Amino acid sequence: MNQPLKYAVFGAGSWATAIVKMLCENLDEVGWYMRSVYTKEHLLKEQHNPSYLSSVEFKIDQLKLSNDINELAEWADVLIFVIPSAFMHSELEKLKVDISQKTIVSAVKGIMPQSGLLVGEHFHDIYKIPFENIAVIAGPCHAEEVALERLSYLTISCADAEKAQAIADVLSSDYIKTKISDDIIGTEYAVMLKNIYAIAAGMAHGLGYGDNFQSVLMSNAIREMKRFIKKMHKMKRNINNSAYLGDLLVTGYSTFSRNRMFGNMIGKGYTVKSAQMEMSMVAEGYYATKSAHEINLKNAKKTRLPIIEAVYAILYENKDPKQVFKKLTDKLD
Amino acid sequence: MNQPLKYAVFGAGSWATAIVKMLCENLDEVGWYMRSVYTKEHLLKEQHNPSYLSSVEFKIDQLKLSNDINELAEWADVLIFVIPSAFMHSELEKLKVDISQKTIVSAVKGIMPQSGLLVGEHFHDIYKIPFENIAVIAGPCHAEEVALERLSYLTISCADAEKAQAIADVLSSDYIKTKISDDIIGTEYAVMLKNIYAIAAGMAHGLGYGDNFQSVLMSNAIREMKRFIKKMHKMKRNINNSAYLGDLLVTGYSTFSRNRMFGNMIGKGYTVKSAQMEMSMVAEGYYATKSAHEINLKNAKKTRLPIIEAVYAILYENKDPKQVFKKLTDKLD
Repeated sequence: MNQPLKYAVFGAGSWATAIVKMLCENLDEVGWYMRSVYTKEHLLKEQHNPSYLSSVEFKIDQLKLSNDINELAEWADVLIFVIPSAFMHSELEKLKVDISQKTIVSAVKGIMPQSGLLVGEHFHDIYKIPFENIAVIAGPCHAEEVALERLSYLTISCADAEKAQAIADVLSSDYIKTKISDDIIGTEYAVMLKNIYAIAAGMAHGLGYGDNFQSVLMSNAIREMKRFIKKMHKMKRNINNSAYLGDLLVTGYSTFSRNRMFGNMIGKGYTVKSAQMEMSMVAEGYYATKSAHEINLKNAKKTRLPIIEAVYAILYENKDPKQVFKKLTDKLD
Repeated sequence: MNQPLKYAVFGAGSWATAIVKMLCENLDEVGWYMRSVYTKEHLLKEQHNPSYLSSVEFKIDQLKLSNDINELAEWADVLIFVIPSAFMHSELEKLKVDISQKTIVSAVKGIMPQSGLLVGEHFHDIYKIPFENIAVIAGPCHAEEVALERLSYLTISCADAEKAQAIADVLSSDYIKTKISDDIIGTEYAVMLKNIYAIAAGMAHGLGYGDNFQSVLMSNAIREMKRFIKKMHKMKRNINNSAYLGDLLVTGYSTFSRNRMFGNMIGKGYTVKSAQMEMSMVAEGYYATKSAHEINLKNAKKTRLPIIEAVYAILYENKDPKQVFKKLTDKLD
């Protein structure tokens, strides 16, 4: 009989904590790497993460906790990265062990800010991991509802369907339904782009636009997302599947989304800097906006991206949100 | 020079009141039929509708108010019907004047419950109005936000593009943007179907499902709506345009939607009858569910409609919402 595969989660934010909880429903032992010694000690003593989803109680003998990224990268067969994209670079710098034979799963909700590469592409390029060994976990899924064990659906994308199914199986439970997909590039871009649209939704709200406009914005956003992804990777996909549209909606309509909150503050008149300081959180969409803008700039034939360009103009060109949105409303339908 | 066309609105609910307000931005005189003598007297005396959108003040000399449906049907060139579908039949029974030469616009958010016909089809069949003279107004648009003059978008569908544009023009203003479409059948079905999905969203909420599930439900709903409409009228349409997806979202995510509210009560354990009595309002989706179910039953090759069938089973077959939704969750992805 085959030895069961060993899974480790890298990161200790709310989404990482939710994924560890899902794995604990099915596995005897789950590796969990976190940078913070305090978080690890707290988990050992109190059985929960002190900072995120602290209502979730873990059985400590099920967890292999470590502050050493190399220890768990060595130990695990499947490495699930759930680190904000802005910190991926500094975390991966610590990685010394050879991971070229491992399966890499990205649950990072963004793009590598330094290179503009998708997380999957980054692992392929830098660590020579074949694409069949790279997978992506996509929502729609707020971590907070996983903590409450409210029914949620995940899509696991991988070029190798068997691998995707194996990962889907260890994440499935009474409250998690999974499906698999072979559109790894498309789902990874969708995960990244939705955060930009959540910022746009927040800005609109902050500027005083209502629910009628929000629905028009989302209807335009999914069409814009479809154009963007099609340009990056043309294949047959239904953009209305939950990994794309569902994920856009759960983020764009959530008043808890940090991206939407960030946009809301900008819409209300905060500067980018003061909004970021006030939140003391990373809004993934901030970096994603720059990457998406630059990716489109590099393309020979540009895609029409009115929403992304509006958010870019406000966040990176210091344009007045009110004016930019007024112009944007003429481009939507 | 041509005489400007005369417009009259039939109905005095919130959506009718919002449409009268839009027309008053552009026309010197707007006909407005309402059944209630009290509403008319109140409008004359207090300049606002006593029961709906009462914050909206009208200039009385701009309105041609009447309790006589025939007077305004005779007077107007363009007749805009905004009566709940359940009352259309009894209202239209009063109509004695010949309207076969008029332009008929439906802003009814449902289907004729007696015949299962779309409102447009009904006018075509019974009043011999050619399809080029029938138009439909679709959202996404809460009447309440029109009252607040919050930016909203409408789609006007008519087989005759010039006619659609003329209607679009008299509805447009600083806060209303319009577009036209030739998909009159598709938009009318979308307007009707979204109310069923709003009931489903309310039921899910009442049963304790969260935001993650709501987004999966909406992502499945738009795919189901696409299948349904394609079966009824095959043509090239982008189901993610705001008249379809946008309208679905504004209703499905609104906590004010009476359809969602109705579903929520059922999910929480009210019987259909007690929920209807408690609300003392018509949830259009209640009738739409039956019509959609029966339309599909009549088709030789059935369309897969898991959400509509789930709502039907709960509303019309007295099935337990909890059990029905548990089964439904396995059919969604």
